[in-house]
Amino acid sequence: MLSWIDGQPAELLSVQDRGLAYGDGLFETIAITAGQPSLLERHLARLSEGCARLHIPLDLPLLRAELLAFSRQLGDGVAKLILTRGDGLRGYAPPQPAQPRRLLLGNPKPSYPAAHAAQGVRLFPCATRLAEQPVLAGLKHLNRLEQVLARGEWRDAEHAEGLMLDGAGRVIEGVYSNLFIARGGVLITADLSRCGVAGVMRAELLAQAVALGIECQVRDISYAELLAADEVFLCNSLYGVWPVRSLLTHDWPLGPLTRKLQVIARDLLDC
Amino acid sequence: MLSWIDGQPAELLSVQDRGLAYGDGLFETIAITAGQPSLLERHLARLSEGCARLHIPLDLPLLRAELLAFSRQLGDGVAKLILTRGDGLRGYAPPQPAQPRRLLLGNPKPSYPAAHAAQGVRLFPCATRLAEQPVLAGLKHLNRLEQVLARGEWRDAEHAEGLMLDGAGRVIEGVYSNLFIARGGVLITADLSRCGVAGVMRAELLAQAVALGIECQVRDISYAELLAADEVFLCNSLYGVWPVRSLLTHDWPLGPLTRKLQVIARDLLDC
Repeated sequence: MLSWIDGQPAELLSVQDRGLAYGDGLFETIAITAGQPSLLERHLARLSEGCARLHIPLDLPLLRAELLAFSRQLGDGVAKLILTRGDGLRGYAPPQPAQPRRLLLGNPKPSYPAAHAAQGVRLFPCATRLAEQPVLAGLKHLNRLEQVLARGEWRDAEHAEGLMLDGAGRVIEGVYSNLFIARGGVLITADLSRCGVAGVMRAELLAQAVALGIECQVRDISYAELLAADEVFLCNSLYGVWPVRSLLTHDWPLGPLTRKLQVIARDLLDC
Repeated sequence: MLSWIDGQPAELLSVQDRGLAYGDGLFETIAITAGQPSLLERHLARLSEGCARLHIPLDLPLLRAELLAFSRQLGDGVAKLILTRGDGLRGYAPPQPAQPRRLLLGNPKPSYPAAHAAQGVRLFPCATRLAEQPVLAGLKHLNRLEQVLARGEWRDAEHAEGLMLDGAGRVIEGVYSNLFIARGGVLITADLSRCGVAGVMRAELLAQAVALGIECQVRDISYAELLAADEVFLCNSLYGVWPVRSLLTHDWPLGPLTRKLQVIARDLLDC
């Protein structure tokens, strides 16, 4: 596994890193094709927003240069970028100034069954709910126990992803994907101001759909509205778009909006 | 710094550890005096409960033996025990079986001003709220961004601790302490079934107070009830008990129940 810490090859980390102690940091999972990162500007923008909200200093030009060099060396695969607040294990108080640590970990692209994209997937109904925490909502931070517990709820291969609701029962996202529904030609995805991860593929698909003249809404989605949708699909920055075909006893057809967005996502990831 | 990983001296950790990737683990902060850990059984009991709830396998006899050996070597100080789910960076799914990793980090005891215990402390009113997440509530897990953000809200030495409320405005705890109020001779501490960390000192003080015939209640506490309390104090497993004397414009006296519990805590930490 290709692994860099602060720009140097390294596979071991200080036990005093606050990323370990408190999950005090952020990450991005970036598809790399022929040495080039996909959706680079959106990944860096989300990381920058996370750093601003968590008050972690960020040297963006340095990080960008390192990520580009790492991507060239990786060639094809997935780059996981982790930015922690750096060392400081004695108490929660953030060090002033913090010395953030940059990790880059390379892996092969995950090999999902081709049928997930072609025919669609079945959702597992996760019992683990997403807590409402506006100060962390939207960020891809390192506090991910909710996703770990949710993903641990099923092991069979029949379910490719899990559906996560918030405490009030609103439809938020998948465990490692964002979720869209289509209804009457309108594309709808959950408001992520209380919980959830604002995925870069979600942001890009919203922008491209608007540019194509498709009406888009970002707002609360009830469970009833999910079931009543014409189409449902998932997206993330690695696999693109997967149609959702079933959840418990409910089935959805594979529709035209899903296919249209899937083509867009595929083009973005074949950079 | 004394530092062990899986029973061996080591200061560097695999970058693939899920403690870093997802905060997928638990920790305990244990006072060590003359080579002996204080409140050992309560620390191990909380860790065991955390492992059961997060489905992390735990070799308790091994962990206990390692902690005791580490404590003898440390002599006097604070042992931070971190148990992670071990390696596995590719996706949220918990590895089956997991190979948990045990970290033990030794540090000197923190040197708090003697006045904190003697005269009491001033609370900072944290704007960061605790999210309601019943599946994680009570545990001392590694997802601690709420505490990091709350502790980052003040830097002056005038405030020794911060008050944390939940999303509904209920009084829950300090950033690194539990909170008790006394009213009409009754000791009250917050119900931690929705959020908060169930501290081992809190548990021990409750048990000892009951044994002394003091009526104890574990239930919701409103902000108005906090202000109306006869006495307020904080506790944790390192400093014991600190009287709380003020919050914004409100003052509390230093009362007899606080002093009684403070003596008990001091005895527990002078083991």
